[in-house]
Amino acid sequence: MHSVRVAGVGSTQFGKQPERASRDLFAEAGAGALADAGVPHADVEFVAYGNFAGEAVEGQGHAGPLAADALGVDAPATRYEAACASSGVAFREGVRAVRAGDADVVVAGGAERLSHLDTAHTTEALASAADELWEGRAGATFPGVYALMADAYFGEYGGTREDLAHVAVKNHANAMGNPHAQFQREVTVADVLDAPPVADPLGLLDACPITDGASAVVLASEAYVAEHDVDAPVAVTGSGQGGDRLALADRAHLARTPAASAAADAAYADAGVTPADVDVAEVHDCFTIAEVLALEALGFYGHGDAIGAARAGETTRDGRLPVNLSGGLKAKGHPVGATGTSQIAELTALLRGDHHNADAVPDAEVALAHNAGGTVASAVVHVLEVAE
Amino acid sequence: MHSVRVAGVGSTQFGKQPERASRDLFAEAGAGALADAGVPHADVEFVAYGNFAGEAVEGQGHAGPLAADALGVDAPATRYEAACASSGVAFREGVRAVRAGDADVVVAGGAERLSHLDTAHTTEALASAADELWEGRAGATFPGVYALMADAYFGEYGGTREDLAHVAVKNHANAMGNPHAQFQREVTVADVLDAPPVADPLGLLDACPITDGASAVVLASEAYVAEHDVDAPVAVTGSGQGGDRLALADRAHLARTPAASAAADAAYADAGVTPADVDVAEVHDCFTIAEVLALEALGFYGHGDAIGAARAGETTRDGRLPVNLSGGLKAKGHPVGATGTSQIAELTALLRGDHHNADAVPDAEVALAHNAGGTVASAVVHVLEVAE
Repeated sequence: MHSVRVAGVGSTQFGKQPERASRDLFAEAGAGALADAGVPHADVEFVAYGNFAGEAVEGQGHAGPLAADALGVDAPATRYEAACASSGVAFREGVRAVRAGDADVVVAGGAERLSHLDTAHTTEALASAADELWEGRAGATFPGVYALMADAYFGEYGGTREDLAHVAVKNHANAMGNPHAQFQREVTVADVLDAPPVADPLGLLDACPITDGASAVVLASEAYVAEHDVDAPVAVTGSGQGGDRLALADRAHLARTPAASAAADAAYADAGVTPADVDVAEVHDCFTIAEVLALEALGFYGHGDAIGAARAGETTRDGRLPVNLSGGLKAKGHPVGATGTSQIAELTALLRGDHHNADAVPDAEVALAHNAGGTVASAVVHVLEVAE
Repeated sequence: MHSVRVAGVGSTQFGKQPERASRDLFAEAGAGALADAGVPHADVEFVAYGNFAGEAVEGQGHAGPLAADALGVDAPATRYEAACASSGVAFREGVRAVRAGDADVVVAGGAERLSHLDTAHTTEALASAADELWEGRAGATFPGVYALMADAYFGEYGGTREDLAHVAVKNHANAMGNPHAQFQREVTVADVLDAPPVADPLGLLDACPITDGASAVVLASEAYVAEHDVDAPVAVTGSGQGGDRLALADRAHLARTPAASAAADAAYADAGVTPADVDVAEVHDCFTIAEVLALEALGFYGHGDAIGAARAGETTRDGRLPVNLSGGLKAKGHPVGATGTSQIAELTALLRGDHHNADAVPDAEVALAHNAGGTVASAVVHVLEVAE
């Protein structure tokens, strides 16, 4: 098995950019990643591209070759679609291509354009990540299904809206100074509690925004990095994927996300690390409750124990396990198909020391990324480490 | 690298089944493949699922976990989308997962539901495989872009509508007796020439139909097959993928498909075979001209030389290289996301000797599958061989 390095990372500004097609967003992020890596376009042997809603919102499928073309790369390209985990899956399969020896250099990334439609149409497109027959037709939208999960959590383990508000406060604070973040403004617990309700118990500031954007990373084999003297100090040491039934009604437990646990177990085993080894994490906080569920599924906390983590300062920038130093989906933004590789880009910068919050984790050696699709019917977990 | 076997194959009836959701179609094909393999559901470690238009026509994205659930499999699952090459790509990545040692048993397959919409909506959804900004908005549909390719071919190399008609005649003849085929009726050259025009020079009988259906194959490592005494005499020995620019206007040549050539070169090299070694092939004949372009790109003929192949009987069931003994997309049908693994299923049956046309190639040892997306902006080629 070939070892894999992250050789470069790129991201567009996240935010409302309704006039830009997904391809244009990806071209910018991909070019940024290649420039960061110092790897020529001609060396790219595969493009792994994540996009969720292109067919519904841009009338554009078959986006793999389109992404490669926009990037100016003449190589095979595949589109991966796993709802909000689309580029997490693209990254995983890019890693596998390098490990298998099928490619020495892969660009993995993703893009999403959402804000050009009105919110009703965007919400409908996003709802196609849920079970159309058993959830969508019943009127379920994503705030709705995550509200059900939050409600189940409160009922089973306890917790309050104020506990969740601390997650939003933390992630908004972390986004301050992130040049790519959609929001660069702090919010208070009172702001979150007073925000308009979206789906009880979740309010507007419990939810990530609608975002346009793209991200990309350059993956390279250790052999390529050595031969071409590429500065790529971050290695991908663990990769795991888990799956669950799409419809919440089909699940045994609404307040747990076993797909994330399965993905994490596989990634930890692959890397030969445990949750205790992780110094910094980016987790999929599409709603505040989602960060809590993730911290438990990933083994950082027992079930029912993560609800107070942000409030207690354990996951803040000065805590024992800083989580979402990028600002997370909550404040950096959530351009759906771009989120998975955005997390990798942020963690790589943190491990390299060129991140706006790098001073929070100066000695970090092990980082974890958790990217989830839908109500975590898909989950992808990766472990990154500073290479010896 | 772990060697990979095709342990079982399954297919639904191809045809109009507007009342069935994609998930139901896939469940049938997948269950059939597992039964054919004699592999228990619990041993499946990954589901690689191809689907093209689900978001546009069923309001359903995130179809990987949904497909696994429909199949009754508790394993990670990913949806691959490469237009008409979606399940060819899914198969390729399933092969890679086994080769990389990430899974011993993978179900790769695909499904598409199209006939529940009116033809205008279906045509619009299919057009999202082309470049929406530069082709779709100009009114280009798939018959239109393939007509441009046929016209370019005739202009550069010569050929007539009658030459193309022989492709349709051959493939309809081959479908006779295929229990899964949408059409089981022979057509004559006169029928094809007299059919209503669709996009000059292509008529209705130059085009594949709109089809609902699903297909699936079970992939297993050689180690698993040996340990569990699975009867799996067909090995996957070669895999290749190629890409091209989506828009025809961006290409150097309208009468060639270099993505297919790149995929074939990679697959031949991977398998250690040449075009001359291939005994039987399934190629992507979404239009009659597409089969001609494929035969040339795959190295079976020089550029401009394949136009007369069917007419001369070289690719008929009694010819030196029988092509599309299944009936092809033209007559078996083209449920877009299901086509790639349908080709693998047909070739596996031909190599095993349990195909309705197996008597045409009793000594076949090497088979080739060519699956293309859009106007061959994506191409996937696989080589299957009878294992020693």
